[in-house]
Amino acid sequence: MSPASFRTGFDPDTPVFRAHEGGKLEVRSTKALRDRADLALLYTPGVAEVCLAIAEDPGLVARYTARGNTVAVISDGTAVLGLGDIGPLGALPVMEGKAVLFKHFAGVDAVPVVMESGPVDELVEAIVRIAPSYGGINLEDISAPRCFAIEEQLKERLDIPVFHDDQHGTAIVVLAGLMNAMRVLGRELAEQRVVVGGAGAAGVAVTKLLQRAGVRDVVVCDSRGVIVPSRPDVTGHKRMLAASTNPRAVTGDLGEALRGADVYVGVSGGQVPEEDIAKMAHDCLIFALANPTPEVHPEVAHRYAAVVATGRSDFPNQINNVLAFPGIFRGALDSGARQITEAMKLAAAAAIADLVEHPSVDEVVPSVFQPGVADAVAAAVARLAHH
Amino acid sequence: MSPASFRTGFDPDTPVFRAHEGGKLEVRSTKALRDRADLALLYTPGVAEVCLAIAEDPGLVARYTARGNTVAVISDGTAVLGLGDIGPLGALPVMEGKAVLFKHFAGVDAVPVVMESGPVDELVEAIVRIAPSYGGINLEDISAPRCFAIEEQLKERLDIPVFHDDQHGTAIVVLAGLMNAMRVLGRELAEQRVVVGGAGAAGVAVTKLLQRAGVRDVVVCDSRGVIVPSRPDVTGHKRMLAASTNPRAVTGDLGEALRGADVYVGVSGGQVPEEDIAKMAHDCLIFALANPTPEVHPEVAHRYAAVVATGRSDFPNQINNVLAFPGIFRGALDSGARQITEAMKLAAAAAIADLVEHPSVDEVVPSVFQPGVADAVAAAVARLAHH
Repeated sequence: MSPASFRTGFDPDTPVFRAHEGGKLEVRSTKALRDRADLALLYTPGVAEVCLAIAEDPGLVARYTARGNTVAVISDGTAVLGLGDIGPLGALPVMEGKAVLFKHFAGVDAVPVVMESGPVDELVEAIVRIAPSYGGINLEDISAPRCFAIEEQLKERLDIPVFHDDQHGTAIVVLAGLMNAMRVLGRELAEQRVVVGGAGAAGVAVTKLLQRAGVRDVVVCDSRGVIVPSRPDVTGHKRMLAASTNPRAVTGDLGEALRGADVYVGVSGGQVPEEDIAKMAHDCLIFALANPTPEVHPEVAHRYAAVVATGRSDFPNQINNVLAFPGIFRGALDSGARQITEAMKLAAAAAIADLVEHPSVDEVVPSVFQPGVADAVAAAVARLAHH
Repeated sequence: MSPASFRTGFDPDTPVFRAHEGGKLEVRSTKALRDRADLALLYTPGVAEVCLAIAEDPGLVARYTARGNTVAVISDGTAVLGLGDIGPLGALPVMEGKAVLFKHFAGVDAVPVVMESGPVDELVEAIVRIAPSYGGINLEDISAPRCFAIEEQLKERLDIPVFHDDQHGTAIVVLAGLMNAMRVLGRELAEQRVVVGGAGAAGVAVTKLLQRAGVRDVVVCDSRGVIVPSRPDVTGHKRMLAASTNPRAVTGDLGEALRGADVYVGVSGGQVPEEDIAKMAHDCLIFALANPTPEVHPEVAHRYAAVVATGRSDFPNQINNVLAFPGIFRGALDSGARQITEAMKLAAAAAIADLVEHPSVDEVVPSVFQPGVADAVAAAVARLAHH
């Protein structure tokens, strides 16, 4: 395709393309290679002793290779940011960016692995086969509902942490924000009526984690309205959602669901008209997380809500996964955890919430650059590794 | 298993284990991440523009990601050094070491990928699936004859360079050494009677490359003697070898093959008795490459040979793959070559040979630390990229 056909107006002289010139990652040796003596230690013949020791006692791999600090950031490029299915090559800059964040915030060595997409079982087979290379697996930007089955099957078959960040990273930071909002407003999370807008990766994970945190009244909507068992198109993971949510048996569209709701968490990418927001309860909470265009503009949301959060860095209360995933993996790798459990996710959310020294309606989550976030999350996760 | 059962006498306080503490690799960002502005360029929302541009014009992936400088070092751990099938975890220290060498000698970013072993087609499927992540693939320490089929199928299905170093790296450096030995001795390579001892990965590749370099009389032996079509156990790749070698229809054991031979290339790991070496032609060449124990001890070999080479760094004429693979991939990546062709292998061998300013019987190949080796090999490979 000619440059003229770019939807984005590709221009190599813009800051974003200049920042990406040559890519964002390199692989380096942590050991000096100065002479034949070094070569004989780091490579043949010396390395053979290390290989044999690991072959006899696989536990030594964590001590004598970089594996124990290495996480694969794996995507098939089917749900990249808000861009959709743009393929593995198109996804690569995101995976490299993620690796940059892993290293910067938590000292984790992350390597991008972008895969040709395909049936769930084929992706799972390929990932299981290369899994011995890594201490953990961060799944990224894989379309729903395939992402659910892929993560589930990998967790079953592998003894290293597997974590689909689009699901759980988002859910953890949303929960952290809601916890602090409750503190600021003097309310109980368990008592809130919550509406989740969107039933993809993030929507499902947010719903499940909020339920685990005690929320009883969650209503989930997709583009066709409230997810209820009677809808003929509600199958698969939506069927399970329908069964576990909506205790008041609300029906209808998102506007109906929002009537009297205390909390709206938008992870849909759609737009919510002001008249629907106006139906929410007094002093409600609006987390409109679609990027770059929130489901409700923060200015509009503030007319009705006591706390407004978005995914954007140019408004207060940015719900950003980078508050969670670096520390999650740091803690799991350091403690030798074989899974990221539900208890760890709750603990990570609480740790993130606790990092805000003086929570206010404009500060329910810490800044991504606040020092010590990853350490606190890592400690919370590691504490639960052997429970 | 308890430490007491280690064949190697695992001792964390020895230099080799100390040198491996924590592994040998790290992944780093090549871009500064200082503040929100950097974050917005390197990750969301800025990265989306780069993703879209690549999705529309996949050729841009080389410019805006690290892929174009990244090589996967892939093994299933079935033929690690001389240690045999020790599994993917046991193989990892070698792959990390290889990555250290890739970076040190040629500035290539290499990432280890160790895989659970399995049938050829399953390994190929997994590698094809993750291939979009890499600019090239270095196969390593995969057992014969599986390595032949795996490399062949990958070359057919992928449009990035695929190179099984145990085969071709060895063959290229052997050829380089023989070329200089011919110069020193004033002989013609095409006229030599060559015996290759070993019909695994290296033996097959050495045989093919020598034939391509003009050698007409190659006899290949495995542990059962000369590979001839009449042997009932000669099937698969050995059958092809039998058909293309041994023009004088020699039969019998290695000793018979060596009678009157000008060159012996040992890549077997076995031992050759002095009485067999004694049958070789006057002023013969002995390349005894088994590591750490050469097929013939250099002292014994020197009683008969004009030139002796080994795989060891503590004798002259070390045949070391590191003379070849870093430059091979450097040249292929820089030139956008989609394959490492046979012509490139010959050119690489000639380039390595030419790097020895004053060849002598004790210097038929350059030192691995001689400056400029990888550059010269890269240039030779790159020149042939678009022919």
